[in-house]
Formats: sequence, structure tokens, C-alpha cells
Amino acid sequence: MAESAPDSPARPRRRHDPERRDRIIDACLDVIAERGVSGTTHRLVAAAADVSLGSMTYHFDGMADLLREAFERFARAFAAAFEARMERCDSPAEARSALVDHIVHGVFGTGRELILTQELYTLAAREPALRSITTRWMRSSRRTLERFFDPTTSAILDALVEGMTLHRALDTEPYDEGTVAAAIDRVAGDAR
Amino acid sequence: MAESAPDSPARPRRRHDPERRDRIIDACLDVIAERGVSGTTHRLVAAAADVSLGSMTYHFDGMADLLREAFERFARAFAAAFEARMERCDSPAEARSALVDHIVHGVFGTGRELILTQELYTLAAREPALRSITTRWMRSSRRTLERFFDPTTSAILDALVEGMTLHRALDTEPYDEGTVAAAIDRVAGDAR
Repeated sequence: MAESAPDSPARPRRRHDPERRDRIIDACLDVIAERGVSGTTHRLVAAAADVSLGSMTYHFDGMADLLREAFERFARAFAAAFEARMERCDSPAEARSALVDHIVHGVFGTGRELILTQELYTLAAREPALRSITTRWMRSSRRTLERFFDPTTSAILDALVEGMTLHRALDTEPYDEGTVAAAIDRVAGDAR
Repeated sequence: MAESAPDSPARPRRRHDPERRDRIIDACLDVIAERGVSGTTHRLVAAAADVSLGSMTYHFDGMADLLREAFERFARAFAAAFEARMERCDSPAEARSALVDHIVHGVFGTGRELILTQELYTLAAREPALRSITTRWMRSSRRTLERFFDPTTSAILDALVEGMTLHRALDTEPYDEGTVAAAIDRVAGDAR
């Protein structure tokens, strides 16, 4: 992405920056990760994206619209990374190993993903309209798993990945890789 | 609980109401369910509990202390209800049926439990100190399951219950009881 100088009245051409909308969405995710959905304001996002408040109003129909776009981008990126990881597998056995690795090492590596995921779920718990995002995300993960497993197995594995990553993240003494491998094996061990 | 008249300077005896602290904690959960952790203020909780702001300060060492107490009570009540439900089972087979029922019908019946759980997880994702609450909650659920299943199976079932209830709650077309039963059976089907 071409970097440009700070926004200011002296540089009106920034108004036509085609990547401005994208930058606002990325900045919104940064602000949510730092301050939570409830602490995310137009002003903070504009500052993080280095755009004017007017630009926010031009590109987004209010905060609900921006939050939806931001979480859609987050979910899509997360789903795409999962798909890319699983595409490197050549067999159900490799896919099972990759899932164990994903749960133990991959998913919430930085803490940022854990926080953004929980922020999205909390919002979707309150606002059914946002469940289109979580629903699409689940469909995508299961489609990825269905390259190796039948639909029922894929749906169960998807729930198991969710539950185990969350439990490991919120446990002061998380269980080890052996328990994770046993779980994946019990659910999907007979797929060759 | 004995009901008392609204708090006012004319009724100083309310200051010694032994259930006042309890009432503040319950009121705090109501306010969190309605407005989220971020929208929860001393003033709103005091109004919901029908106590003075001074009483809040007397009983709690700030909002972080009150939130911790509130979420501890919520997690304990949830864990106790789960234990009570599972105690009615006489065999692993009955326990498996009870778990399916718990996932499909029980857990997030009102929406309030889903919201409070997600609010707690979001807070614990940001603040490791609060993971003592989620850790204790998981230990309690697994201990309940260990009446019927070995520790590894119990840990896996606990994660599966978490993942499946969450996925069903956040899916616009949640999968049915058959998928849930298949999952429980694959993880714990050989326990007699």
C-alpha cells in the first residue's frame, strides 16, 4: 500500500485515496482490539486510519455499518488463513495433525485474534443480525474441513476446534497436545 | 429474601441490610446482561439494586472488584445447575443423553446466559487475572463429568459442549440434535 502524508486541509487529494475505505476498516479492527467494541468511536478510528471524520461519514453509514464491515473482514481473513493451512494437507491423517497444531499453536497466537473473536461473538450474542457473519464463517470452516471429512464430522470438528482453543486460552493451566490429539482422533480418526 | 422499602435518608437501617451486598452483585449481573460490561456503571448498578452510591463504595473496592464478584457468582450458579442436572443421571448412557439435551435445549435458553458468558470470556481474553474464574468453572464442569467419564474424556466433552452450544447459538440455521448426539457418542460412546 502506498503510504501518504498525514491528512490535512492542505492535502485535499487524500480524499480520493482509493485505499482509504480499506484503511478505515483495518484501523477499526485495531481500535476494537485495543479498546473493545464499546470503546470504538468514529474519532478514534479516524485518528488510527489517519483520515478526517468527514471521510468516515462518507464511507460508512454509521458505526454499526463500520463494525459489520470490520468483523466481516476479520472473519474472512481468519477463514482464509485456515483454508490455506489445511490446503497444504494431502490426507485426512495430515489434516488431523494440522488441526491439532492449529488448536495448540495457531489460532490465538497473538491474543489479538482471541480478543477480536470474543468481541464479535459478544456482539452477535446481543444482535442476531450479526449472526450472518458468524454463520458464514462457520460455513467456510466446514467447507474447508469437508475436503477431508464428511459434513457431520466436519461440523463436529469445527465445534471441537472452537471449544478447545477457547478453553485452552481461558485456562491458567491448559491441557496439553495429547488431549487435543485424542479429541480429534475420537471424532475423525476413522477417515483415511 | 425479605423485601424492604426504597432506600432513603429516612431509613438508615437499610444500611445494615445483610443481603445488600448480595443484591448489588445480582443487580450488577442484570446491568451487564442489559448493557454489557462497558456500559455497567456504579450509578446504574446502585439504581438496579436500590441502594445508595455510598453503599456500593462500602461493599466493593471499585468496579473491577464488583465485576469479578458478579462473574464469579454467575459461573458458580451455572456450574451448580449443570452439576444438579448431571446428578440425576445414573449411568454414562444417561449422562450422554443429558449432555445432548443440555446443548440443544438447556444452556443458553434465555439468551441472558449466552450474553453473560460471552461478556465474561471477552473480559478474560483481555485480562488474564480473570481467568481464575473461567479456570474454576472448567474444573467444576469436568469434575461433574468425571462422575461418569475418565478425565481426558471429560475435558474433551467440556470443550465439545462449549463449542457446540456456541456454534448453535451463533448460527442462523443451527445443526440438529442428531449431529450433537453423534458428537457426544464419538467422544464418549464407549463409557458404560
